[in-house]
Amino acid sequence: MNKREELIALLHEKSFRTGEFTLTSGKKSNYYIDVRATSTDPRGAALIGDLLLERIASLGGVDAVAGMVLGAVPVVMGAVARSVDAGAPVSALLVRKEAKGHGRGKRLEGTITPGMRVLIVDDVATTAGSTLKTIEAVLDEVPAAKIVGVVAVVDRNEGGREAVADAGYELTALVTVDELFALGERPVE
Amino acid sequence: MNKREELIALLHEKSFRTGEFTLTSGKKSNYYIDVRATSTDPRGAALIGDLLLERIASLGGVDAVAGMVLGAVPVVMGAVARSVDAGAPVSALLVRKEAKGHGRGKRLEGTITPGMRVLIVDDVATTAGSTLKTIEAVLDEVPAAKIVGVVAVVDRNEGGREAVADAGYELTALVTVDELFALGERPVE
Repeated sequence: MNKREELIALLHEKSFRTGEFTLTSGKKSNYYIDVRATSTDPRGAALIGDLLLERIASLGGVDAVAGMVLGAVPVVMGAVARSVDAGAPVSALLVRKEAKGHGRGKRLEGTITPGMRVLIVDDVATTAGSTLKTIEAVLDEVPAAKIVGVVAVVDRNEGGREAVADAGYELTALVTVDELFALGERPVE
Repeated sequence: MNKREELIALLHEKSFRTGEFTLTSGKKSNYYIDVRATSTDPRGAALIGDLLLERIASLGGVDAVAGMVLGAVPVVMGAVARSVDAGAPVSALLVRKEAKGHGRGKRLEGTITPGMRVLIVDDVATTAGSTLKTIEAVLDEVPAAKIVGVVAVVDRNEGGREAVADAGYELTALVTVDELFALGERPVE
């Protein structure tokens, strides 16, 4: 198994459940994906990190990987914590849902340099609302930031790619939901 | 330089500033530490991760490393993302400040097993308020959890160790503030 096949198997085991679900949005769905169960797993964090580092290399390198609290943070850190060993260090930009109420009031945690190249990541792309907010926060806070790519761990194929394209960026995914269904149903026990 | 010396030098460069500061608590201080500037750095994340994995080995291993949003999450993930390669996989438990308002309302993200051995981490220990809240959340949510240690990246030596001891646990730090001052003042530019 290559790393992507390993990640698909691990997501299928830990994060994917089939049945009748009502999503946060209120919408009904015949499956549920909780990427956090995989991104907080030691093997999952390493696989997601290494696959993102491969994407980053194919994009010609970036200075930072940015993701929003909470779901995207372990995704970001999987790549960052393994990047020196991979020979291409990248920093983390951790984006708060809202600006901090006290102290320095920072929306972003991490090192900001003007014109830095940034990869945006998210755990799941549904309509890509949180992904678009991450892009907005980075563009608001980092002078002349260059968003060089947008990657979700799992794409639910529900319009997220189109919404990100409308904003002028390309969303790709490490895994699509079809690849999870291809391994079979996973009813809740 | 060994890894701890490397981490001290990196914290001194990226996270440590001397001068007159008013902390979040309202207290005055002659220095400021922003561990996030180091924990989001690729080398910093790897150094913190590897030093935590050494502590974990000396504690006889753990099942998970737990830390609170936002500051402790890159600290947790530094260890988790490097743990398989170190031959001792550990999972992440990410603790929300408050329970989630919608959906499944989870306070913790990560895999919970009864009786699991957990290392609690924090970025900075001042009075250790957030560290104690992390311990409380883990004990509330994980049946028969065993807290085997409490580690802060930096100890400000302001009563945190004593507060954690009062709760029945031992707080140790990767680095103490004295070791940062030993490398010299770092006035804000």
